[in-house]
Amino acid sequence: MPTAHRHHVVIIGAGFGGITAAQTLSRADVDITIVDKRNYHLFQPLLYQVATAELSPADIAWPIRSIFSRQDNVTVQLSRVVDVDLDAKAVKCEDADLTFDTLIVANGSSHSYFGKDAWADYAPGLKRIVDATEVRRRILMAFERAEIAKSAADRERELTFVVVGAGPTGVELAGAIAELAQVTMAADFRRIRDAKARVILMEGGPRVLGAFPDDLSAKAAKALHDLGVEVRLNTIVEDITADGVLAGGTFIPSATVTWAAGVQVQGAGEWLGAETDRAGRVVVGPDLTLPNHPDVFVIGDAAKVPWRDGADVPGIAPAAKQQGKYAGRTIKARLANSSAPGPFRYRHLGNLATIGRNKAVIDFGRFRMSGFVAWWIWGMAHIYFLIGVRRPLVVALSWLSSYVFRSKGARLITGMAHLRGK
Amino acid sequence: MPTAHRHHVVIIGAGFGGITAAQTLSRADVDITIVDKRNYHLFQPLLYQVATAELSPADIAWPIRSIFSRQDNVTVQLSRVVDVDLDAKAVKCEDADLTFDTLIVANGSSHSYFGKDAWADYAPGLKRIVDATEVRRRILMAFERAEIAKSAADRERELTFVVVGAGPTGVELAGAIAELAQVTMAADFRRIRDAKARVILMEGGPRVLGAFPDDLSAKAAKALHDLGVEVRLNTIVEDITADGVLAGGTFIPSATVTWAAGVQVQGAGEWLGAETDRAGRVVVGPDLTLPNHPDVFVIGDAAKVPWRDGADVPGIAPAAKQQGKYAGRTIKARLANSSAPGPFRYRHLGNLATIGRNKAVIDFGRFRMSGFVAWWIWGMAHIYFLIGVRRPLVVALSWLSSYVFRSKGARLITGMAHLRGK
Repeated sequence: MPTAHRHHVVIIGAGFGGITAAQTLSRADVDITIVDKRNYHLFQPLLYQVATAELSPADIAWPIRSIFSRQDNVTVQLSRVVDVDLDAKAVKCEDADLTFDTLIVANGSSHSYFGKDAWADYAPGLKRIVDATEVRRRILMAFERAEIAKSAADRERELTFVVVGAGPTGVELAGAIAELAQVTMAADFRRIRDAKARVILMEGGPRVLGAFPDDLSAKAAKALHDLGVEVRLNTIVEDITADGVLAGGTFIPSATVTWAAGVQVQGAGEWLGAETDRAGRVVVGPDLTLPNHPDVFVIGDAAKVPWRDGADVPGIAPAAKQQGKYAGRTIKARLANSSAPGPFRYRHLGNLATIGRNKAVIDFGRFRMSGFVAWWIWGMAHIYFLIGVRRPLVVALSWLSSYVFRSKGARLITGMAHLRGK
Repeated sequence: MPTAHRHHVVIIGAGFGGITAAQTLSRADVDITIVDKRNYHLFQPLLYQVATAELSPADIAWPIRSIFSRQDNVTVQLSRVVDVDLDAKAVKCEDADLTFDTLIVANGSSHSYFGKDAWADYAPGLKRIVDATEVRRRILMAFERAEIAKSAADRERELTFVVVGAGPTGVELAGAIAELAQVTMAADFRRIRDAKARVILMEGGPRVLGAFPDDLSAKAAKALHDLGVEVRLNTIVEDITADGVLAGGTFIPSATVTWAAGVQVQGAGEWLGAETDRAGRVVVGPDLTLPNHPDVFVIGDAAKVPWRDGADVPGIAPAAKQQGKYAGRTIKARLANSSAPGPFRYRHLGNLATIGRNKAVIDFGRFRMSGFVAWWIWGMAHIYFLIGVRRPLVVALSWLSSYVFRSKGARLITGMAHLRGK
């Protein structure tokens, strides 16, 4: 529990940025309070595998408290942040307010429908565990409804899956749905055994994985094609209803639409009364602090940090971790009255995406590859990240066994089963 | 898909009874349709471990379809049964009706509040996965709320857990909550570290595990006492509210009450227009069929089957499996025109209950034991049962690793987090 005399660091959000900041301060003479509205840290890059029933929620999420069981200077508070009072140096929560000496805002981003919030009901995004289990429920229920469909048109609609947005999440999700449909499910359904599922990936831009180099985009497109995914580029979604998707003037009947097209930062800008960009990201200085507020850091997805060639630091896990580490080190240097680190510099480690089982594209700058070896590197990179928060042996074993045995236990429909339509 | 000339067996319910009946008919010249409103078979005896965050839902549930992937004469239909027309030999479902030559009703039981349905909101039972994750959410949220409680009384109420009913489920649940509170959670909470959680087990009868012999009841009571569980016998619950439990004239403030006191069969009696007992169980003949309807079996929890000394066959997994096997064999004998098996005879294999980690009481008739060895036999018995439905290696590994590493991933609060009260 925070005592009166120790410097108090409050961290909002237990994502990659917040967790890393707290870990960096593990031996510092500070009290740390992590506030999050959920009780777990989520390994978001693997969330799509929960959506496609390859992993269970417990495989990719860990209680924040258990991550810090042995780090005695950390207190975890499950609470929703309502506002920040910069003058009083206080964080207002729904339940119990907190005062801080230093504040780290690392509350991440959620998905955005670009103002078309009505689409949320018909096309869930993929940011939280409940999103993933909802998408999983919809995908699995579509097969169940197809199995008892009364007409060919109904069956076809149930077996058409649309993914909107061809960034890494959309590409990975489309590939995984195609595999689930064509390999795994074929054995378990008697009546639709010979019916063909369609997976359609829609993208407004001219290529998939727009942030990757051209040749890797092409390789990803080919891998998707090999899995039977129909990729539709330069296609703007005009409407999404309970019956399907209207895009490029064509209506595609589909019972299962998933949204992977945009993110939006919520909260941070309003709490801090700070300047934000269109996506809600807070504009910070070169040391990741708020202008005129050196004791308030904003890191991870919530921050707009310039990088190179006019581009910003991307909203990916390694970037958030680097920023968390930077914030932690800056705080330590200030407490020690030693010289502060120079401005934050992002080190781009590369881009990774996996397309179906055993295929991935990797871009490590000069080093690029795709195919089976890339898939294994992708796997190792993920296990490596996990090791930071969980015993490596447990993760490696459970993750490996999920893959080797194609675990079926994750294929549970646990929400309300609406057999009639959605 | 059923063809015109083959004998069609419809099985309602994919619990232990229904699954075993279908497996017994694996090489018979029949078409089998299993109808269930859920897509998974649930290993109910371990459900309390999901409620106490030791296992994840996917550890104890398997998609029905995947159990029968390789048994080609089985079709699975995810559907809700509405009625049975015995004259037309048809099962009316919400989505697609089915006609049958032989019907096996094995739809199990749900928990019952003895007419006090208003209690359901404040004291969830433990029969389905959603029940277990709801109980888990309530237990974990109680600790979270205690951590930020504003008064000692609030904190005490949050840290008081009441379990109603001291049958195997209630005893196992109370023991597991006590361990979760005292061993596991103590490390993860900073502010309530030294506060003491109370676990109260209430039972209307004169002893815990009323169906077990006296000396094992006594051993179980001692094990519960050692874990710090307060056992209150001969205590009738008078009211349950959002604030706590009124029992024996005393009100106990408690934020987390769980119901393990009674079961009720729903559906079967009305569908069949059949005689039932007070718990809704259908009265069947010595061959487990409905009087005057030799083609309609009722098995498992849904059936009232006399056993010995005026008692009925108990509603436990081995009994349901034996009945499923008997029904399957009877159908095979009829199709082969060979002599039908004699009347169903229940073979009681014993009673098992586990109290906390590493303690169990076992009653195999002449052979009775308790303590650590009993716990291991309990573990083996469960793994043995699981083997029927899943690769033994996978189960043994995941189950073992959950125990050895005290898996924390299962400790996720995934529902809506109502921080303010319930």
